Amino acid sequence: MNDYFMQKALEIAALSGNDIPVGAVIVKDNEIISKFHNEKEIRNDITAHAEILTLKDAAKKLSDWRLNGCDLYVTLEPCPMCLWAIISSRIDNLYFGAYDNVYGGYSAFPDLYQKSNSKLCIKGGIMEKECTKLLDDYFARIR
Amino acid sequence: MNDYFMQKALEIAALSGNDIPVGAVIVKDNEIISKFHNEKEIRNDITAHAEILTLKDAAKKLSDWRLNGCDLYVTLEPCPMCLWAIISSRIDNLYFGAYDNVYGGYSAFPDLYQKSNSKLCIKGGIMEKECTKLLDDYFARIR
Repeated sequence: MNDYFMQKALEIAALSGNDIPVGAVIVKDNEIISKFHNEKEIRNDITAHAEILTLKDAAKKLSDWRLNGCDLYVTLEPCPMCLWAIISSRIDNLYFGAYDNVYGGYSAFPDLYQKSNSKLCIKGGIMEKECTKLLDDYFARIR
Repeated sequence: MNDYFMQKALEIAALSGNDIPVGAVIVKDNEIISKFHNEKEIRNDITAHAEILTLKDAAKKLSDWRLNGCDLYVTLEPCPMCLWAIISSRIDNLYFGAYDNVYGGYSAFPDLYQKSNSKLCIKGGIMEKECTKLLDDYFARIR
């Protein structure tokens, strides 16, 4: 099931255009209720990461910023901004694909999660190879 | 000058209604180009902190998410989400009022700033007494 939803996140990520390809979906009761890719450049908005856009959209659809009962799948490990937003939103489970050992909110800043007292469960490395390849291909293309 | 702009942030913060009173202003060339208070509850949006709203608004006004040459004043130390957004936005100087030793992105998670390689200058404790009082009064009222 994890692979199914990560595949969907990958499909969204592939539509990122000139933005760094990252895709996210939020799932509730086994249904995708929100999906976005990174839109930072196209929206000219530092906060328009895929995770933030799905959190905002899901909150709007559910009329509640509290996203208990929801899971978030994202192709790249969230940055600290997004991880804190995910923690604050009370998402149940965070699944991410590629690790980011330099700026990943979980790998590079372990204090963030550890000191948050969050009940969020985090699992990285879902379809890691495919998620990493998408990013590597993008950076190879623009360099 | 710091006190002048922090006073403006305090005035915005006082308009937060049912939201926790936090106000932020972004200053460029000695002029306020954006000002918001916390709107998390009224917008039902986990990301609608005063800092995020000003960053997005200033980027829109300047047609650039890169806010070099801008300073941000905020009455409460930014959370990790907001601090990372501020760092990413390339703001020059961050001035905050009240410290948050539990969830403050600077005080409680020193790695965030230290490992970011950011050129951002941070100064806390500007009009600290007034900023702290605004929050204390709010929490005394709702408890």
